[in-house]
Amino acid sequence: MDPVTISYAVEKTDDYRASILIEGLPGVGHVGKLVADHIVDELDGVLLARIISHHFPPQVFINKEGVVNLPKNELYLVKTEPPLLLLTGDCQSTSPEGHYILTEEYLNLAELFGVTRIYTLGGYGVGRLVDEPRVLCAADRPELIEDAVNAGAVFAQEEPPGGIIGAAGLLIGLGAIRGMEGVALLGETSGYLVDPISAGSVLSVLSQMIGIDIDPSRLQETAAELEGALEKLKESEQDREQEDLSYIG
Amino acid sequence: MDPVTISYAVEKTDDYRASILIEGLPGVGHVGKLVADHIVDELDGVLLARIISHHFPPQVFINKEGVVNLPKNELYLVKTEPPLLLLTGDCQSTSPEGHYILTEEYLNLAELFGVTRIYTLGGYGVGRLVDEPRVLCAADRPELIEDAVNAGAVFAQEEPPGGIIGAAGLLIGLGAIRGMEGVALLGETSGYLVDPISAGSVLSVLSQMIGIDIDPSRLQETAAELEGALEKLKESEQDREQEDLSYIG
Amino acid sequence: MDPVTISYAVEKTDDYRASILIEGLPGVGHVGKLVADHIVDELDGVLLARIISHHFPPQVFINKEGVVNLPKNELYLVKTEPPLLLLTGDCQSTSPEGHYILTEEYLNLAELFGVTRIYTLGGYGVGRLVDEPRVLCAADRPELIEDAVNAGAVFAQEEPPGGIIGAAGLLIGLGAIRGMEGVALLGETSGYLVDPISAGSVLSVLSQMIGIDIDPSRLQETAAELEGALEKLKESEQDREQEDLSYIG
Amino acid sequence: MDPVTISYAVEKTDDYRASILIEGLPGVGHVGKLVADHIVDELDGVLLARIISHHFPPQVFINKEGVVNLPKNELYLVKTEPPLLLLTGDCQSTSPEGHYILTEEYLNLAELFGVTRIYTLGGYGVGRLVDEPRVLCAADRPELIEDAVNAGAVFAQEEPPGGIIGAAGLLIGLGAIRGMEGVALLGETSGYLVDPISAGSVLSVLSQMIGIDIDPSRLQETAAELEGALEKLKESEQDREQEDLSYIG
Repeated sequence: MDPVTISYAVEKTDDYRASILIEGLPGVGHVGKLVADHIVDELDGVLLARIISHHFPPQVFINKEGVVNLPKNELYLVKTEPPLLLLTGDCQSTSPEGHYILTEEYLNLAELFGVTRIYTLGGYGVGRLVDEPRVLCAADRPELIEDAVNAGAVFAQEEPPGGIIGAAGLLIGLGAIRGMEGVALLGETSGYLVDPISAGSVLSVLSQMIGIDIDPSRLQETAAELEGALEKLKESEQDREQEDLSYIG
Repeated sequence: MDPVTISYAVEKTDDYRASILIEGLPGVGHVGKLVADHIVDELDGVLLARIISHHFPPQVFINKEGVVNLPKNELYLVKTEPPLLLLTGDCQSTSPEGHYILTEEYLNLAELFGVTRIYTLGGYGVGRLVDEPRVLCAADRPELIEDAVNAGAVFAQEEPPGGIIGAAGLLIGLGAIRGMEGVALLGETSGYLVDPISAGSVLSVLSQMIGIDIDPSRLQETAAELEGALEKLKESEQDREQEDLSYIG
Repeated sequence: MDPVTISYAVEKTDDYRASILIEGLPGVGHVGKLVADHIVDELDGVLLARIISHHFPPQVFINKEGVVNLPKNELYLVKTEPPLLLLTGDCQSTSPEGHYILTEEYLNLAELFGVTRIYTLGGYGVGRLVDEPRVLCAADRPELIEDAVNAGAVFAQEEPPGGIIGAAGLLIGLGAIRGMEGVALLGETSGYLVDPISAGSVLSVLSQMIGIDIDPSRLQETAAELEGALEKLKESEQDREQEDLSYIG
Repeated sequence: MDPVTISYAVEKTDDYRASILIEGLPGVGHVGKLVADHIVDELDGVLLARIISHHFPPQVFINKEGVVNLPKNELYLVKTEPPLLLLTGDCQSTSPEGHYILTEEYLNLAELFGVTRIYTLGGYGVGRLVDEPRVLCAADRPELIEDAVNAGAVFAQEEPPGGIIGAAGLLIGLGAIRGMEGVALLGETSGYLVDPISAGSVLSVLSQMIGIDIDPSRLQETAAELEGALEKLKESEQDREQEDLSYIG
């Protein structure tokens, strides 16, 4: 395999076009992932491509049937009007360089399918529970911030402090170089829990911006499942630390 | 040397064929390594190939005679019916990327010798002593889980939480892409000690699955030796930390 | 993008020549960055080139208008007599190797524009507040140390202990191999705060050495702005740690 | 520069031949470096080559005159009978992979100058002060251990536990693949201080093995100088940690 390996799940990529890419990879509160997974489920997304990479964690996950799966990112298309591409998955890069390398590959895919605007979704950890989470926004150009605010997002000059880390930030920064528009929607969240309420707020702003109604009612359910999976992962982090101590021998 | 260097210990690799690969590299409780080393010893394994790599720890080990050895992985063949390949060694990769790169090389070797099914062996750290360790299983397809359960393994939907880290996981995940079947057998173990009892349980399930009787009686002995070696390594970890502080000067 | 990508902001690089490069990237007390940014602002620097890189942090920053920017280094020219090149930016490499690779690129740019002497500016953290910060100096040849001392710098045999880390050090070390003269000016600073007083002292020595008067009065102002930005970044470091825990899922 | 850059200090490398290489890079108690530096000083070593590398720390050191120097390794020849090559310097690799890559380059140099036997020198940290430090030995073949023991070294089956880390280990392990003999001489040392007494013991065994008398009387002096330099470095480690926190901004 190459450091980044893309395998297409459709025969002719030319048959699939979308001008909008929505990114929802794992991150703070899994807000972005929750929204992206929800849209794929809700609107019957078609899998276009799978990405595996040396830059992903060196492990496999086990599903409910006991079947192992490599860490992966996936690109889906939902056939709404306009059609949407969704980038989701179960991991991001393990290294700083890998984030840049993977984002370039995401952008190559985006170009292949005709993307001109990118929405990146995420959480903004505030360290406390939030009853009515605001959705902060940032973009590669001022007009998009205005659009986001009109759709219910908040523009706060001092927030999020310190920028946007990982694919959600780099997709906009590196996408702008290729002439793609980019806007980040970040839901306030505690940072400690999978947060379907924050995800609901982000989904609402996003729906408004792309002009597509998406029923949020099953978000809560999806979040509960993900929460369970994450609990398991936290335990396994501890296993991994143990294991690191004994890899040599 | 290349980042991964394979040197063959036999003249004609074509003379050696096996459809089964068993992986037992160092890991939690050294359960997998214990089983693989035991099979090689017990059934007079023939060394086929040695692997050294930039991705291994930057050090040498010293054997009982004072002779130094590079960290290495080794591939053995035992001439049972069916014949078995065994992948064992004294280390895994020091970096996430290295795990992927090395696993691809293991799979290249597997293909070279005709492997169609991979068993990966390991421990599953539970943080407490276990009297009668269960053997958990995961696989690249449901049928293999059934086979493992029939051979005495346990399928528990929530275990191991968080997946399988390192070569034991990636061999199955990346092997599946090449069309190889893969099953992981993970013996419960405290995570703190070299565990011949857990290894015995794993060996029992494995023997049943591959249809070859393997006498477990010397496992205890092998474990005692490895325990001694590990004790020494733990001390040396401390040396290494000291050394790190003074490398510059 | 390449691991290091340089994009020129001027049409013909041949039209811009300077024999002096002044480096002021982020570091202890942001003393160097403060001085370099101040000179660019004060003397109406012309942007010549932008550098982005895989070796920079994998994130974007957000400016006051909510517009995202990739981490970058920038090369400016101020049309004084002699003209000056200024290397400034919002980050350095995230890895040891990256520091070497980026410094080579800085030197390629320096050669392109005709640089023969490099001044690197920084802080020297002393762990306590300093009322009248001294400016320590080091260079690639003894004559330059004499020049720096004549301009008000201090040569203290035991200081700075342990050398100069990052671009400020490597530019002089690797520049010398290419025949460029190099001198480092390091202002004493607590190490805990953005320090316009230390920056003022460094600016004073630098002005004297290059024979160009530069009004220091707005340094305090610039420092206050940077201090605000850094406060935000410290908070975001905490976010990042939180995020690291939840990237998988 | 390449990831590893070698620059020769002599016009014709063909004029310089030696069958013995002695490595003394920084490590525990700086025992190896102390011995190698001492031999170069005492026997008027001729500098043959300098190595700089991306794998070295990203910084410069400052000498007593205030002149900066890149971290480097150096290869010297002393014209004794037999002549000796000495590998010394002020650092080792910052990464695991770098240790392998650099060691291959050391071996390329060794081959170029005709080396057939390698002595690697180091300290073995025991965590307490030692009045009469033993010199432990390990080698790539049993005969060399016998030779070392005859020269005053000690062979103790359980020591050093866990092997030999860094260039001192890899030079023997990777050198053996190229057919070079290799022996490691490791002086007991506390691990906390530059240790001229341990270095004296190692020098004594080495002198005996290579059949060359080397006056140890100035070792104490060299150690005092190095101790001073190391004190400064420890302080700078703390600076570096401070600096790491503020690189972005």
